Amino acid sequence: MSTLPTNLKHIALFFERLPGIGEKTANRLAMYLLRMPESELKIFGENVSTLKSRTKLCKRCFNLTEKELCSICEDNRRDTSKITVVETVLDLLSFEVGNIYNGTYHVLHGKIDPLNSIGPEDIYVNQLLDRVKELQKADSTLEEIILATNPDMEGEATAMYIMKKLKSQNLKLKISRLAYGLPMGANLEYADYGTLGKAIEGRTKY
Amino acid sequence: MSTLPTNLKHIALFFERLPGIGEKTANRLAMYLLRMPESELKIFGENVSTLKSRTKLCKRCFNLTEKELCSICEDNRRDTSKITVVETVLDLLSFEVGNIYNGTYHVLHGKIDPLNSIGPEDIYVNQLLDRVKELQKADSTLEEIILATNPDMEGEATAMYIMKKLKSQNLKLKISRLAYGLPMGANLEYADYGTLGKAIEGRTKY
Repeated sequence: MSTLPTNLKHIALFFERLPGIGEKTANRLAMYLLRMPESELKIFGENVSTLKSRTKLCKRCFNLTEKELCSICEDNRRDTSKITVVETVLDLLSFEVGNIYNGTYHVLHGKIDPLNSIGPEDIYVNQLLDRVKELQKADSTLEEIILATNPDMEGEATAMYIMKKLKSQNLKLKISRLAYGLPMGANLEYADYGTLGKAIEGRTKY
Repeated sequence: MSTLPTNLKHIALFFERLPGIGEKTANRLAMYLLRMPESELKIFGENVSTLKSRTKLCKRCFNLTEKELCSICEDNRRDTSKITVVETVLDLLSFEVGNIYNGTYHVLHGKIDPLNSIGPEDIYVNQLLDRVKELQKADSTLEEIILATNPDMEGEATAMYIMKKLKSQNLKLKISRLAYGLPMGANLEYADYGTLGKAIEGRTKY
């Protein structure tokens, strides 16, 4: 590595710190940058430099934005009767890419995870409860909260926690959870017991 | 994707253009940057912006450098009696990381590949021939040229071409090629015929 010029070495070491990128890949990526047009590297460099100072959290749903509200909260065509609660912005993006949902979101930025000392106060749960309370007070169109945390231990616990908190407030709201079952294109032979069990349990009438 | 702030989206799209990085990984990497300290992003951004203008090729061996000569050519402790000819700077790095070679290098920046219209004049072959000629004229200590192009069709052709060119100049030089055979830790059962053939052909006395 000491044979590389200083700034190229720095770039490679930076890449190496990113998740899923090892030393060889980092070197390969750094070399690849050398073959890109200088103008593009300049724009990318500036974007990275100003990334933190320009990116904020939407004050309503905590999605990422450069303004006060994110593009989803600002969009009038969105169905404000539904709020889908997700763990991360990447989860939100998965819904958006699929174009399968037209409601609004609430990003928790984490999940309740006692083993790693992450409690409800460490994620944006209270902000969700406040948002829902205020919307109900303001007689809004909000009808449903869809809990879309991941189907793992911590995700389940987080969904359960939010569900209980919401129910304890006696709000006139439908609270739902994403369906469990076989993923599309799956093979029964390779499905795990947990998924198969959920698929039988939640079977639908044909 | 349109739900991401503009500069974050730009960063994700930039990552997506790098080799081996798809849309999901690109988004994940862009998000990861948000969690890094701003000062580090600034340094990285500046390094990327100035990368092209600061990085040059060593005028002797065509390794990457910020000065006239690369760190290897500048190093007095290097054994200048050997020049190892490699295709890319990444190949050079593989030797350096292993700490298995103390001589100098010559980087071709490619290989002869007629199918993609890459001829000897498109890579730094003539510069190697000139370098060797001059060294011999100057009565240097140069003793050996090690051809370390990749063991594939184009790499072989490139090594063969350089070997013939060097031999035609009637220089008093040893010209060698990297050994072929089983890689360390390999399993005979899964070795391909080509490799096994080379391993038998090049067997050494025990």
